[in-house]
Amino acid sequence: MTAGRVLLLVLDGISDRPCSELGGRTPLEAAETPVLDRLAREGICGIMDPIGPGIRPGSDTAHLSILGYPPDRYYTGRGPLEAEGCGIHMEPGMIGFRANFATLDREGRVADRRAGRIHGTAPLCDAIEKEVRLKHGISFRFRPGAGHRAALALKGADLGPRVSSNDPKTEGLQPPEIKPLTREAKDRRTAEACNDFLRQAGAILADHPLNRSRKEEGLPPANTILLRGAGEMGRFEPFADRFHMQGSVIAAATLITGIGRAIGLESVPVPGITGSADTNLGGKVKAALAELGKKEFVLLNIKGADEAGHDGLPVQKREFISRVDTALEPLLSLEDTLVVACGDHSTPCSIRDHSADPVPLVIRGEGVRVDRVTRFSETACAEGGLHRIPGSALLPILLDLVNRARKYGA
Amino acid sequence: MTAGRVLLLVLDGISDRPCSELGGRTPLEAAETPVLDRLAREGICGIMDPIGPGIRPGSDTAHLSILGYPPDRYYTGRGPLEAEGCGIHMEPGMIGFRANFATLDREGRVADRRAGRIHGTAPLCDAIEKEVRLKHGISFRFRPGAGHRAALALKGADLGPRVSSNDPKTEGLQPPEIKPLTREAKDRRTAEACNDFLRQAGAILADHPLNRSRKEEGLPPANTILLRGAGEMGRFEPFADRFHMQGSVIAAATLITGIGRAIGLESVPVPGITGSADTNLGGKVKAALAELGKKEFVLLNIKGADEAGHDGLPVQKREFISRVDTALEPLLSLEDTLVVACGDHSTPCSIRDHSADPVPLVIRGEGVRVDRVTRFSETACAEGGLHRIPGSALLPILLDLVNRARKYGA
Repeated sequence: MTAGRVLLLVLDGISDRPCSELGGRTPLEAAETPVLDRLAREGICGIMDPIGPGIRPGSDTAHLSILGYPPDRYYTGRGPLEAEGCGIHMEPGMIGFRANFATLDREGRVADRRAGRIHGTAPLCDAIEKEVRLKHGISFRFRPGAGHRAALALKGADLGPRVSSNDPKTEGLQPPEIKPLTREAKDRRTAEACNDFLRQAGAILADHPLNRSRKEEGLPPANTILLRGAGEMGRFEPFADRFHMQGSVIAAATLITGIGRAIGLESVPVPGITGSADTNLGGKVKAALAELGKKEFVLLNIKGADEAGHDGLPVQKREFISRVDTALEPLLSLEDTLVVACGDHSTPCSIRDHSADPVPLVIRGEGVRVDRVTRFSETACAEGGLHRIPGSALLPILLDLVNRARKYGA
Repeated sequence: MTAGRVLLLVLDGISDRPCSELGGRTPLEAAETPVLDRLAREGICGIMDPIGPGIRPGSDTAHLSILGYPPDRYYTGRGPLEAEGCGIHMEPGMIGFRANFATLDREGRVADRRAGRIHGTAPLCDAIEKEVRLKHGISFRFRPGAGHRAALALKGADLGPRVSSNDPKTEGLQPPEIKPLTREAKDRRTAEACNDFLRQAGAILADHPLNRSRKEEGLPPANTILLRGAGEMGRFEPFADRFHMQGSVIAAATLITGIGRAIGLESVPVPGITGSADTNLGGKVKAALAELGKKEFVLLNIKGADEAGHDGLPVQKREFISRVDTALEPLLSLEDTLVVACGDHSTPCSIRDHSADPVPLVIRGEGVRVDRVTRFSETACAEGGLHRIPGSALLPILLDLVNRARKYGA
């Protein structure tokens, strides 16, 4: 028996280090996880260095690596991936930026980097896309992301990605001009286009009805845009060509849907998903099961544990992991499917950021050699039959298990 | 105490995945293997990715890797290695092909790709070597392999390896002309030489007394030759220079003896070895023991388990493994010798082909650190003290254990 499909469940930032608040256990060790434990008992476990031992991954580089696209070759900054995740079709050579709507005070200083965590910015983006005109034949897209977030993409001949950000990072400072970081003409052109875009967009936002009504309600207006994460979109060999499987991605984070779209996975929207602890877990799992009826590969990213780690909250992280586990129960009855669960990186509460600690990994389904691990945790999985693998090995191993690998030699 | 010699026993395709026919065990787990288990108990175990995690190896690339010759550098197709295994001394630059004797019907279509699994083709090969004359100063060798198999080698200035096969793969089709796969003159020269060879050989075979008597007996005549696996012989640093040990190879498969000869191992013939379940196991083991009296390194390849895997027969595979184990009993009393047992790749019955699942590995002999593994199987060895190693690490580890490694640094 060989499984025909793969569900890759990435539990974003799930793994951790021992927490004194949890009696020296990690949030994953302290959580109630009967579903993940059953996967461990029925499958083969291991630990994985998403990129390599001691390399502290971003969510973007980790996902690229785990999906079989080595970040040293494929990663060109977060901007183009965020833009793709905001629904902009990024062609190779386009320059992408992450964007925040923000609030400037009367002196032109940043009063709120997130414009009061504004939601529903599509009308602002639409107005900007309709009215802004850039010079030198440069076209652009500007689309909303989650909450105050958005993405800008520039398209034109000879644009470079090496430009600075206008995000002063701290409130109370004026956003600086965007500057080229090299002396190359193409980076200068990009910087000029950004500054031109920001001037015109600022004028449109200042007068926009949505901002007028926010001011009337005493809410901070979204009267400026902060750009960062500039990068040039690369050329990704489509996932279906590379791994001989059609695939979908289900994720709340635009970064992850962006990575999925960039490599040719179909992005499946799920109502009510937020990327936080209040996300619609059941809806995501249901959507994943539905996709497995149509595709051979589904990437399902669940993000809340990462947030608790960034916030340094081990108890909340433990609770969220238990809730995730409950929502995963329908995966246990999947047939003809490899269910793969792992983290993309560790987010230790003690560090409040990503760490290079390996992530736990389980592969459960037809044909796997079952080891003696009975618990899904950082230390239990370290005793498993997969041992310690690099993230780059995961897709080749899965491809081999579903019998879509090609033989090297005869 | 340090062992002075190494017996590398490659149990071709021995490892597998859980088989429902064997109650969820692998054939190796289900087999009676007291000898291999004793090696495991007295030695150090691990699992090995012959080439790398998730890379599905051929027997050729796996053996090259395990023998310390990285296939990405040394592998140039199966043809030249098969030719070497058929006793042709392949010089760097020569072009080698695998060959089948086959039967054409009156309309020139392939009626039997194996000419009724003909044996004893040496007279046919001799006649062809004597009578065929190629143009442009190209010389050739054409030697028999096992059964209907043979090998062709071309030698001449400026011959290229990138040419197509004339094997239509399915019976009932005419063999196509061999064509160059590039526009390079050297590949064109090779294709022309092959087609010329095939025309002349066909005429010789049509009239050959052996084929006339086959027809009289109602057997399909070997009246044509199918060529495939073209490759250019590379330059192999001799094993003795690379690893400071003189070595021999004992294998039924011409591919394995060819690899052994290519790297400078002496090929030791054993009567009655077939590469199948009916092979002369005792004879091979006896020959290996005899060689260890003369050489520091012996590669012993036993192939039958691989065949059962390719045929998808878990019970037969289990039985063959048990028989192999019985035949290995004399190895237990070897002294001053590292006995190393491993697979070259897995051949799961569920896949009927090679897979990338790691292979079990045991090293037993003077000086090894004995771990707690007591069973030679895929999952038991995964708990061993060697952990998970790449095939490229095996020879350096063995060299170190027999104290022939050189220090790096001071």
